[in-house]
Amino acid sequence: MADVGEDELLAMVFPILTAAGESGDVTVGPGDDAAVLAVGGGGLVATTDAVVHGRDWRDEWSTGEDVGAKVAAQNLADVAAMGARPVALLVTLVMAPSTELDWVLDLARGLATVAASAACPVVGGDLSSAPEGVLTVSVTAFGTLDGRRAVLRSGAEVGDVVAVAGSLGLSGAGLRLLSDGRAEADPEAVAVHRRPTPPLALGPVAADAGATSMIDLSDGLLRDASRVAAASGVCVDLSSAALAGDVGRLEPVLGVEAARECVLGGGEEHSLLASFPARAGVPGGFRVIGTVRAGQGVAVDGIPEQPRGWDHFGG
Amino acid sequence: MADVGEDELLAMVFPILTAAGESGDVTVGPGDDAAVLAVGGGGLVATTDAVVHGRDWRDEWSTGEDVGAKVAAQNLADVAAMGARPVALLVTLVMAPSTELDWVLDLARGLATVAASAACPVVGGDLSSAPEGVLTVSVTAFGTLDGRRAVLRSGAEVGDVVAVAGSLGLSGAGLRLLSDGRAEADPEAVAVHRRPTPPLALGPVAADAGATSMIDLSDGLLRDASRVAAASGVCVDLSSAALAGDVGRLEPVLGVEAARECVLGGGEEHSLLASFPARAGVPGGFRVIGTVRAGQGVAVDGIPEQPRGWDHFGG
Repeated sequence: MADVGEDELLAMVFPILTAAGESGDVTVGPGDDAAVLAVGGGGLVATTDAVVHGRDWRDEWSTGEDVGAKVAAQNLADVAAMGARPVALLVTLVMAPSTELDWVLDLARGLATVAASAACPVVGGDLSSAPEGVLTVSVTAFGTLDGRRAVLRSGAEVGDVVAVAGSLGLSGAGLRLLSDGRAEADPEAVAVHRRPTPPLALGPVAADAGATSMIDLSDGLLRDASRVAAASGVCVDLSSAALAGDVGRLEPVLGVEAARECVLGGGEEHSLLASFPARAGVPGGFRVIGTVRAGQGVAVDGIPEQPRGWDHFGG
Repeated sequence: MADVGEDELLAMVFPILTAAGESGDVTVGPGDDAAVLAVGGGGLVATTDAVVHGRDWRDEWSTGEDVGAKVAAQNLADVAAMGARPVALLVTLVMAPSTELDWVLDLARGLATVAASAACPVVGGDLSSAPEGVLTVSVTAFGTLDGRRAVLRSGAEVGDVVAVAGSLGLSGAGLRLLSDGRAEADPEAVAVHRRPTPPLALGPVAADAGATSMIDLSDGLLRDASRVAAASGVCVDLSSAALAGDVGRLEPVLGVEAARECVLGGGEEHSLLASFPARAGVPGGFRVIGTVRAGQGVAVDGIPEQPRGWDHFGG
């Protein structure tokens, strides 16, 4: 696995998993923020995301409550990015018997806090024991489209504006500060890294406002924007002027170069990136940060950029 | 965690997770084989189950394809045990970068084989890297009730008959034989341990036939029957005569004591245990193995038995 990137692996695994062919119950299959099922006449959105101790969090930096709140939030952001309203969570905990009970109860509190704030109860899950050193939490989130069509990554059209709801670069900056032992330099950024608060309610709002594409920013602005670009067959061109405020917010703490890297490549922000027809304007809570042009990939001020951000297998 | 049993832990965690209260979208919450959501007017069934390398399987005994087939089957059995028809799977793979690519592709093949045979495609998932030594696969399965009411654990009534669809004790026997290095003594039992084939289609059949309760046998007949007994407020009384064929099937290979233990306590069989009103008879594919009596717990021929089987934390 060490020689294979995440995208490359998915390109090998998808054809095997989907060889069974289509089903009348599936509206949207693998490859978007979430799947969409046409069950009982409704549009059900389903997505899953796992976090791993020692890889996705460190105990020195995050409490159990932080971990629970974050894994719930990142799954709910995927639901929102389809234009859906969260309805329920499943939680799976795989842990060595030496795991502290207090940590587990803290985790549950963090999950419950986010579930309550999103009106999205935990309805089930699984508990598995594991060899020493293993501690993973995986969440599956469900949402309903309430009669809306799903907003996919593939619908961005040339001439659309690109807009974001939520912060940019704070989580990545928080991670850098924790790594550097300088958490006190920007408590807000560190808090966003520990417990992102995606603007969940704005997912359905964007859908109602005619969003042509939407994705949640989990792996970095450039990388996630490049996914929209690839799925839609367009170029996403970001404006450095529109991002200047985000960079400026972090510059005093990190310097301009690192601030820019956090805004363009920092992961785990879980803000919503959407495209809208230019004539319609963008709904409240979104701000325009670029445009959709003919071409491919991502650019800043018209100059192509390498998509960068987080790849789980670093290939 | 080592001092706390699974049921005890769940009793602590549930109240925290469900403190957020009820939601109009949730028909059945935690505690049954699966949750039921009323999304878009339909009854959606959702469940999740994880397997862990070194705990739930060993590479000497199971290929990647076996693991994929088994984790899919055990989730689909939970869907069937609600009386639902499977419609889709999500798959999460958490693995160290040193994991062999071939193993991952084998896993995908096993998942795909079961998904195809159940007409239940994989519609998404998550891929996470993990520290060395970690390899877990978790699956979330969805089903639709197609207008049926869900069959819960809590509906068994005094006077009902208790019936099973599928084998008893084979998976447990297969595990013993693998542990003893005697796999060749009973290839069928070993095959059931590696790849159980739950009678998925009989879940909706049982619901249509008026099943009052249903559960899939994941942790042993006595333990799972005791869950039905506790949820329904009854005693599940099994008949040793009705189980004699199951014990006899394994006796030549294991001896009578171990054969009986496998039938009563062996896990991972994923057969369906249901109760039906006595007057109605049981549908094809089910055979009667006991009755529902007033009282509590589980019994064999009227004599109380300790529920035994698998507890993930052995508390």
